[in-house]
Amino acid sequence: MNCELVTVGTELLLGFTVDTNSAEIGRALAAAGVRVVRRTAVSDDPAAIRDAVGGALARTGVVITTGGLGSTADDITKKTVAELFGATLVFDPSVWADLEARFARLGRVPSANNRGQAEVPAGAVVLPNRWGTAPGLWLEGPPGLVVMLPGVPVEMRNLLASGVLPRLAARSGQGGVIRSTTVRTTGIAESTLAERLGDIDERIAPLTLAYLPGLGSVDLRATAWNLPAAEADRRLAEAAALLAERAGEHAYGAGDDDLAALVLEEARKRGLLVAVAESCTGGLLGGRLTAVPGSSSQFLGGVISYSDGAKQELLWVPEALLAAHGAVSGPVAAAMAAGAARALGAQVAVSITGIAGPDGGSKEKPVGTVWLGFSMPGGTDAILRNTIGTREEVRARAAQIALFELWRRLRRLPE
Amino acid sequence: MNCELVTVGTELLLGFTVDTNSAEIGRALAAAGVRVVRRTAVSDDPAAIRDAVGGALARTGVVITTGGLGSTADDITKKTVAELFGATLVFDPSVWADLEARFARLGRVPSANNRGQAEVPAGAVVLPNRWGTAPGLWLEGPPGLVVMLPGVPVEMRNLLASGVLPRLAARSGQGGVIRSTTVRTTGIAESTLAERLGDIDERIAPLTLAYLPGLGSVDLRATAWNLPAAEADRRLAEAAALLAERAGEHAYGAGDDDLAALVLEEARKRGLLVAVAESCTGGLLGGRLTAVPGSSSQFLGGVISYSDGAKQELLWVPEALLAAHGAVSGPVAAAMAAGAARALGAQVAVSITGIAGPDGGSKEKPVGTVWLGFSMPGGTDAILRNTIGTREEVRARAAQIALFELWRRLRRLPE
Repeated sequence: MNCELVTVGTELLLGFTVDTNSAEIGRALAAAGVRVVRRTAVSDDPAAIRDAVGGALARTGVVITTGGLGSTADDITKKTVAELFGATLVFDPSVWADLEARFARLGRVPSANNRGQAEVPAGAVVLPNRWGTAPGLWLEGPPGLVVMLPGVPVEMRNLLASGVLPRLAARSGQGGVIRSTTVRTTGIAESTLAERLGDIDERIAPLTLAYLPGLGSVDLRATAWNLPAAEADRRLAEAAALLAERAGEHAYGAGDDDLAALVLEEARKRGLLVAVAESCTGGLLGGRLTAVPGSSSQFLGGVISYSDGAKQELLWVPEALLAAHGAVSGPVAAAMAAGAARALGAQVAVSITGIAGPDGGSKEKPVGTVWLGFSMPGGTDAILRNTIGTREEVRARAAQIALFELWRRLRRLPE
Repeated sequence: MNCELVTVGTELLLGFTVDTNSAEIGRALAAAGVRVVRRTAVSDDPAAIRDAVGGALARTGVVITTGGLGSTADDITKKTVAELFGATLVFDPSVWADLEARFARLGRVPSANNRGQAEVPAGAVVLPNRWGTAPGLWLEGPPGLVVMLPGVPVEMRNLLASGVLPRLAARSGQGGVIRSTTVRTTGIAESTLAERLGDIDERIAPLTLAYLPGLGSVDLRATAWNLPAAEADRRLAEAAALLAERAGEHAYGAGDDDLAALVLEEARKRGLLVAVAESCTGGLLGGRLTAVPGSSSQFLGGVISYSDGAKQELLWVPEALLAAHGAVSGPVAAAMAAGAARALGAQVAVSITGIAGPDGGSKEKPVGTVWLGFSMPGGTDAILRNTIGTREEVRARAAQIALFELWRRLRRLPE
């Protein structure tokens, strides 16, 4: 089944907001066997909305809109689509009740002006929005099907999952599915990875392969197009195994696997508690580890030793070591990791000290120089990594590499 | 002048890639007085490209395309647009010379198969691409103007700046510009803010106002449409002043101002050094402060006291306090802040302890409960904030509120 997206919002066209909704919807629909064949973004203008939705209906008969719902948008999408369907707007008591409850929580009472927000096109299915103000609307008629969703990402996402995907999957029926699988790699450049993968395209055909580089990572995405579900799953599993085999130790996970979660899992298997010591990343590594729900069972905490004083006072890094090698050096990285393990009472600690830029670089230690230290049950070591990019990129890459190297070291330990 | 964007790429429609190009082009064109009135994304399919570009030309006469250029895309956009213009493809020796030079740098020689990449639609202006493989193309004829750019962001960006914007600005002639200004607010809900702003829409007309909510923030963006540059700037300055006045202390900055940078600036003015103690945010607050270039002059570091043990050992939080009030409490938050100031030797410290979820909530302390502690030259205090959202949202909001409350406290101190 094909469909089109229509995104309503002047802000999007002017580029004040990056449209992340459309990609998310594209992925979710593909997984449900629905292919987005076109998407159109128009401004908050009834004529433009009518033209875009009308054109999309004429081409595919199924349209999902985002944005232009709710009081601040004057419900422009709802009104325009209702017109297009020749549907009158009717007052919906359940929507009004939700609105009153929402106002009550804020200690307010909705006014007569708010009543328009409780009107829906006659015949529309209301998709309750527990995450925000305007409900989603599912309107079907002679012109086709239009599903209207709010533009606020969290509301769109939840309505899509709860109200839209189950209904669309049921409609899309027996056709093949579009499914993907992702093998996540890190610590290897895209071009080197491509060489390692060799004749992979021929080997996994008719599946296709895409390289998706990120900060310190390259995701490999294999996609099955319009195959029967069972065949798609079988071929994807084979492709994933082949990709992981050829990427070797650089393949750390699948799908949305997060390296921080995998690190904590390896630590958990071995009964090890983890600590961090961060200089140039200033908390990003701790932030990634604690983003994992339940991380408190393995992660004790850490020290953000941004200043030299903090390295000495909280991590027992000797002043002489700092003077001899500088804060960005192997000996200091190793001492930071050992200090963090001692300070937090952890069996495992990782440290990061580097030059994130834009200033502070030198000929010997240019911006991007990062030393990582590891304090493990078997001993302490430090490694140098030369990264590139903006301050933000260097920091994100440093945290990613630290997680990857810690993950490798943990896996070498007996469970 | 109006124009439309057409984006070519199956990956985009499937959502494997988020389209950041379109927002960037929208902003760049607006600054040059060109308004993007619609954008359309289609797959790598000649019929879809022809339909989208043809429709856009019929509506506005000016179209910018991205993607579908170069060898991996089989130059599908170039071929399709040439057909639409009835233009034959002709071999361009300068493009071929660039191609040969590029191959030579890789130690290779282009083959006859590569000659197609050096063909351009007859009459097209070639926009040399020093940043990648496929040149941009500027094709003008009876159907209108089509500017074709590659989809790789760095190539698109550079070609837009070097080849496209100057030409478009020259064409758009004497018309007005589209310019915006943003007032950033935090610590106030969108609906409450709207009430405070009152009759703002009428007061700033013909400028328009948009509310852009984020995690713990609402940006207010005023936009001037097609006004002479001087008038636009004057009106925007007036609107920004009025917005800031009405938003009161919740208005912390303008444009891209970052609250973390403003905190460090206030600390710098007063010669104060800053430290943090983080529990549920696990480093996010330190990460935000150290994201600011030059933060090391005011930020000493902190302690990620994720475990109770870390709170006791590294921050001197009394065990009895933890037992009596729990880790998520005002007394513990205050003790964490005081401990961080002492541990790091800072005059100012802020602490965060809360329940980020998804587990760990209780009736008395539901998920989203966040206590913030502040250790300032004038004394120590703690405040409670009830936030909502996912684990990620609670953590991001907690860090944002901590920065806002620290910023307010710093500004109350004499410089």
